[in-house]
Amino acid sequence: MKTPGEDISGVDRLQATPLYHQIFLQLREEITSGERAFGSRMPTEQELAEGFGVSRITARRALDELAHTHLVERKRRVGTHVIFKSPARPIEGSIEQAVESLIAFGRDTQVKILELEKVKARPPITQALEIPIGAMVIRVARIRWLDDQPLSHLVSYIPADLGVDLTRSSLRSTPMLSLIEQAGIQIGAATQTISASLADAALASALAVDIGSPILRVSRTVLDVNKRPVQHVLAQFRSDRYQIRLDLHSANR
Amino acid sequence: MKTPGEDISGVDRLQATPLYHQIFLQLREEITSGERAFGSRMPTEQELAEGFGVSRITARRALDELAHTHLVERKRRVGTHVIFKSPARPIEGSIEQAVESLIAFGRDTQVKILELEKVKARPPITQALEIPIGAMVIRVARIRWLDDQPLSHLVSYIPADLGVDLTRSSLRSTPMLSLIEQAGIQIGAATQTISASLADAALASALAVDIGSPILRVSRTVLDVNKRPVQHVLAQFRSDRYQIRLDLHSANR
Repeated sequence: MKTPGEDISGVDRLQATPLYHQIFLQLREEITSGERAFGSRMPTEQELAEGFGVSRITARRALDELAHTHLVERKRRVGTHVIFKSPARPIEGSIEQAVESLIAFGRDTQVKILELEKVKARPPITQALEIPIGAMVIRVARIRWLDDQPLSHLVSYIPADLGVDLTRSSLRSTPMLSLIEQAGIQIGAATQTISASLADAALASALAVDIGSPILRVSRTVLDVNKRPVQHVLAQFRSDRYQIRLDLHSANR
Repeated sequence: MKTPGEDISGVDRLQATPLYHQIFLQLREEITSGERAFGSRMPTEQELAEGFGVSRITARRALDELAHTHLVERKRRVGTHVIFKSPARPIEGSIEQAVESLIAFGRDTQVKILELEKVKARPPITQALEIPIGAMVIRVARIRWLDDQPLSHLVSYIPADLGVDLTRSSLRSTPMLSLIEQAGIQIGAATQTISASLADAALASALAVDIGSPILRVSRTVLDVNKRPVQHVLAQFRSDRYQIRLDLHSANR
């Protein structure tokens, strides 16, 4: 069964969206979120083509579309550079409390495992997990349910060599972050990017909403106390059933 | 000029969405975000009608729609109660760092002031600001621009008696949170709800996107150090130009 969301290669050949546009969307998110900073060099056509496993023509069209929307500037010999100065700054939060909330969230909801497989990692997952291309990762696609209705679609990647006990049975009974902790890994930090998108046909079907419904997207990389990435997740929530609450208070209270 | 977003009454009579559905959407967000807790009593038809300034029939339809989507249960004599147990838990962050980011964001972007007016507050603004119905508030509708393109649409409410210097000229030169601080108010905390929605016609026109484009919504209430609400904002971002980044780390580092 084909599931919506990220493919291991970062692009999904079954999607109706053209490949170059999928690459454009991902690079755009990296630029507008500030991950790719103003003035930084973009990958070359050749690097993009290899990284995403697409033709150079496809890579070029993605860069052209970025240039067309004034996010990058392409210059002969100099290459492509980011010309968008993202005003977004990270909000800082407590990892202990976030891990506790995520584990409680896992306990409060039901899970359906769509896919569980060991695969060779490719960009952008290799970048997120800071592992070489071709390193083995466990990929898990799941749906979380609440009150007999789907709430979120999740695709998670964990380096295989971490030895986390990921089976259909363990995943059904235990939140994934708990399984990571049970493997002796101490969670130290996480980075999250929160954005809004629309449900495509596959996601709409998985979440039982209309195509084009608003989706709250969370892309999260979890690091251990030594700053080694141990998990990368793309979570896509039905916005009619879920919001993110953020309480800001003084660090000195 | 009519602007998109919240009307002072919480419902907007110019929107194509029926009034009862606008009230339904707001109450749904309060329930799914966990603001209205599982088991808590909902307002009666009479209370809703008075609060939103609509007929009892409209209020009843909003409650009926909530019941239909299994978020509340309506029982004769017992009233309407929340039956949705929100799995969302607040993430905690630092207010000092968030205020600094918001002020820097204001400095990095251009602002266009659409509306600036002193009006009598009505629900849900009175609830957010914890002021009586009819108390005077300053309402400001603005668009933030970046690189000659609209980025976000904001509607802000500030109690008039705080004496914040809100003029078109001060708002053009100074981020609103700086103006609040300049009035001698010490910001102590904030609560934010982040969700996804679609651009309606008015918002699409204001943000120069297609109708139905994905929108990242942030509803924020800012409190002073004595926990008095000093500002309520609904910010709606173009999701192709803005994401929220959240960095989670150990509080003990």
